[in-house]
Amino acid sequence: MEITKPYVLFLGDAKDQLAAKTAAGVVDWRRDWCVGQIRLRGCKADVGLDDVTIADGAARGAKTLVIGVVNPGGTLPDHWIDEIVAGIEAGMDVASGLHMRLGDVPRIAEAAKAHRRKLFDVRHSTEHFSVGSGVKRPGKRVLTVGTDCSVGKKYAALALEAEMTARGLDAEFRATGQTGVLIAGRGVAIDAVVADFISGAAEWLTPAADPDHWDVVEGQGSLFHPSFAGVTLGLLHGSQPDAFVVCHEPTRTTMRNVPNPLPTVAEVIDATISAGRLTNPAIRCVGVSINTSALSEAEALAVLDKAMADYSLPASDPVRFGMGAIVDRLVAEFP
Amino acid sequence: MEITKPYVLFLGDAKDQLAAKTAAGVVDWRRDWCVGQIRLRGCKADVGLDDVTIADGAARGAKTLVIGVVNPGGTLPDHWIDEIVAGIEAGMDVASGLHMRLGDVPRIAEAAKAHRRKLFDVRHSTEHFSVGSGVKRPGKRVLTVGTDCSVGKKYAALALEAEMTARGLDAEFRATGQTGVLIAGRGVAIDAVVADFISGAAEWLTPAADPDHWDVVEGQGSLFHPSFAGVTLGLLHGSQPDAFVVCHEPTRTTMRNVPNPLPTVAEVIDATISAGRLTNPAIRCVGVSINTSALSEAEALAVLDKAMADYSLPASDPVRFGMGAIVDRLVAEFP
Repeated sequence: MEITKPYVLFLGDAKDQLAAKTAAGVVDWRRDWCVGQIRLRGCKADVGLDDVTIADGAARGAKTLVIGVVNPGGTLPDHWIDEIVAGIEAGMDVASGLHMRLGDVPRIAEAAKAHRRKLFDVRHSTEHFSVGSGVKRPGKRVLTVGTDCSVGKKYAALALEAEMTARGLDAEFRATGQTGVLIAGRGVAIDAVVADFISGAAEWLTPAADPDHWDVVEGQGSLFHPSFAGVTLGLLHGSQPDAFVVCHEPTRTTMRNVPNPLPTVAEVIDATISAGRLTNPAIRCVGVSINTSALSEAEALAVLDKAMADYSLPASDPVRFGMGAIVDRLVAEFP
Repeated sequence: MEITKPYVLFLGDAKDQLAAKTAAGVVDWRRDWCVGQIRLRGCKADVGLDDVTIADGAARGAKTLVIGVVNPGGTLPDHWIDEIVAGIEAGMDVASGLHMRLGDVPRIAEAAKAHRRKLFDVRHSTEHFSVGSGVKRPGKRVLTVGTDCSVGKKYAALALEAEMTARGLDAEFRATGQTGVLIAGRGVAIDAVVADFISGAAEWLTPAADPDHWDVVEGQGSLFHPSFAGVTLGLLHGSQPDAFVVCHEPTRTTMRNVPNPLPTVAEVIDATISAGRLTNPAIRCVGVSINTSALSEAEALAVLDKAMADYSLPASDPVRFGMGAIVDRLVAEFP
């Protein structure tokens, strides 16, 4: 599955900026792929692209209409369907990270068939995976893991890729969630795979490569999250990382949507090494990525200093301070 | 999902006894639910029931035709479809543990619709699960875990249930694999659930219960199996066992279908406690179930003696020596 570029981003009538966070993520990391944003009357989001119509988007060469907004009710409102069908009629594929499948809407399915356009439901993988083999593959891999869900694992992986690429390393982001797949133009929403095939899907996503190639793998969940740890473990085993970065949000008191306390970064390092050794005995931690957005700069620096002292690892906030120190460590460990 | 009893077991033209192991498992544990076996010309399997036709089975009151045989090609041969349709026309539901869905065969789907019979594809759950909550529920749970796949976790759980029930304990087998679901008449093939919902499905399967009730949960895979550990971990977190039994096959040298060496029983105990504590801090091991079928009786006793000494736990082969010692420990630990 490869989503064709460039994109035009559909924001619909997003009720606030957060509702369009998928589109915002695409623009943050792949602005060059985006020819404009389509906003309907009442839209409260703006991701900073030119406002265009379907016709404008087509004229600017858009090949895929990306639904970059969540719909509160879980269904596609009729006025969105009109725009999506217009996009198809203008020659675009459509990509969506919504739970509902585009093809389950008869008008969209019919238009796609009539105009021979593709529908990408990135939450619903159509790939047929094998079960994981556990066999070590050539090429290098770095995985982001977390003390919790939603602590910046995708952002950390994209920031690592950007820093590594800027230094001339052969690095490629490997997406495992729906927003990541839209940003990368491909990948697999690993939490939507049938349980038997989690590690097999992760192996498929990070195939054998040149010895100097780095796959930078977007992590999911946490080994300590009671809802999703199975996904996290299968992804760890299948991606068999040489290196990992622990992501953390220091102001959170309980794990997302559950009452459990957060593990410490040290617990995550130990558990990741302990489990990850099964498919890569040399697995090691190369840094800590801390989301300090809720802290003042002085507080942030104090938290990072403490993490560096506690774990003898580089620690940074990728937004505030970049991934330079962590990539320094990665390069030093894997010369 | 509750499969209606009694069953008539369809063995088709099984090429050997192993091909009918699903039917054999049902007969081993639920002979009272079975009114007979249906064998076609050339069938090499025999699970020890009366040979019957569809008409005989219906006359004996069979409510469900259970496909108790695997088909080598992965598709349903036409002469099986004839029998399945005849069963539906005789008023039976149909239950299958095959990969392919019964309802994907047009003749079967049409017959089921016309006669208002149910089709149970036990590998394909139709239940809508929530994500796991991680919240502790009342009632007690014992889970079988393993050093590998196919080391007797289902058998151990069923033997535990039988021994506990014989002692008057309130114990119920909870099936997590396709054969187990046919044996129990309900349950969920946990490896067929979407990855996001593994622990949620396990929570659904082992709901809140009386404080003295025991769910005896069939384990899946192994925390040390690189293909399936994610399933194992999600099941562990969702079933939040108070107690677990480690299952082991002492003559195996590498894990099933992969090159990895087997972990030791001690490693499995440590990893299970370490991970299981997340949803049940009091989790503990109450015994070791060893499949000694490849050993002489003297060798078997030596292996069990060594395990008891090594781990300070009761160890038994449920087939050869029963689950008495392990249930003794369970009762002593949870008076």
